[in-house]
Amino acid sequence: MKELIEAILTHGKAINEDVLLVDSFLNHQVDPLLMHHIGETFAAFFRKKEIDRVLTIESSGIAPAAFTAYSLGVPLVIMKKQTSRIMTGDLIQTTVRSFTKGTEYQLTVKREFLPAGERVLFIDDFLASGEAAFGAIELVKEAGATVNGIGIVIEKSFQSGRKRLDALNIPVLSLARIRAMGPEGIEFLE
Amino acid sequence: MKELIEAILTHGKAINEDVLLVDSFLNHQVDPLLMHHIGETFAAFFRKKEIDRVLTIESSGIAPAAFTAYSLGVPLVIMKKQTSRIMTGDLIQTTVRSFTKGTEYQLTVKREFLPAGERVLFIDDFLASGEAAFGAIELVKEAGATVNGIGIVIEKSFQSGRKRLDALNIPVLSLARIRAMGPEGIEFLE
Repeated sequence: MKELIEAILTHGKAINEDVLLVDSFLNHQVDPLLMHHIGETFAAFFRKKEIDRVLTIESSGIAPAAFTAYSLGVPLVIMKKQTSRIMTGDLIQTTVRSFTKGTEYQLTVKREFLPAGERVLFIDDFLASGEAAFGAIELVKEAGATVNGIGIVIEKSFQSGRKRLDALNIPVLSLARIRAMGPEGIEFLE
Repeated sequence: MKELIEAILTHGKAINEDVLLVDSFLNHQVDPLLMHHIGETFAAFFRKKEIDRVLTIESSGIAPAAFTAYSLGVPLVIMKKQTSRIMTGDLIQTTVRSFTKGTEYQLTVKREFLPAGERVLFIDDFLASGEAAFGAIELVKEAGATVNGIGIVIEKSFQSGRKRLDALNIPVLSLARIRAMGPEGIEFLE
């Protein structure tokens, strides 16, 4: 996606060979026009998969996922990293390791918001080693639904996540695929 | 906002006199069409305030705030409840007590994403005692900007937040104002 790649080149900063700072348009300050275009792009690509529901992880996935769900005309479900005392009932949980924060966290979703038999589109801001995506796939499987598509805003193609997902034969669309990066610059796959 | 009040009456659940569960359309499962209408409603009301930037708190404020920012054509900034090891530089922080989770948390924003002199619209999902809104006002003041409007999806009018905000003479638009609630039902202000 040309507009996204331009935003990464103009505003992104590769702090080192692993960490890309995109907090000026994606996950702290957010460009809503870009999010809208991202949502339209995911919706156009996955519309033929007859998606019933968009699924994402709080909180950086919410903006692109909300516009995707809006474009598809289906509900969005946000998997929670933290539960609250009012989140009770039949919950599905799995453990994910966060690369960025160097921690483990629980992903939680109410079973009633992942109905069995539905076709789910998982949207997230980053794909690196794929731990978050595999956590999502695990929860959706536990719910008796299926992940029929994965939409990633920025893929670090030099990490293992994309290969691991391709091995599952789930269609993946990454809007920007980074071949390599570092303080000297960012290179994209074609 | 009629459509929102209907959603609350149809899908919301007052667990007791203080806690309203709206996780089937607002903060766990999300109705993106409703979020879009909420965004348009806030944008129409606050457009004359010449808003430069929409500000919200992760994670339940993000969906309504993102559509509001989209409708206004201005950036969104998400105040973080948790920082990561890549969130460095000149940070502004304040402490907020969460009623729902029974905890205190830090709100953090990078100073560069709250430029001095700007007019800020703060959007949040709930207004109860107003602690989150006052935290936001504090951060914006510290940044040298001003809060020129506050948009709330659901106001618990029986708690102190609205009165405390009105005393500051900041325009507040709450799309649903709950006079009282409990297991027997939910009553709205006109």
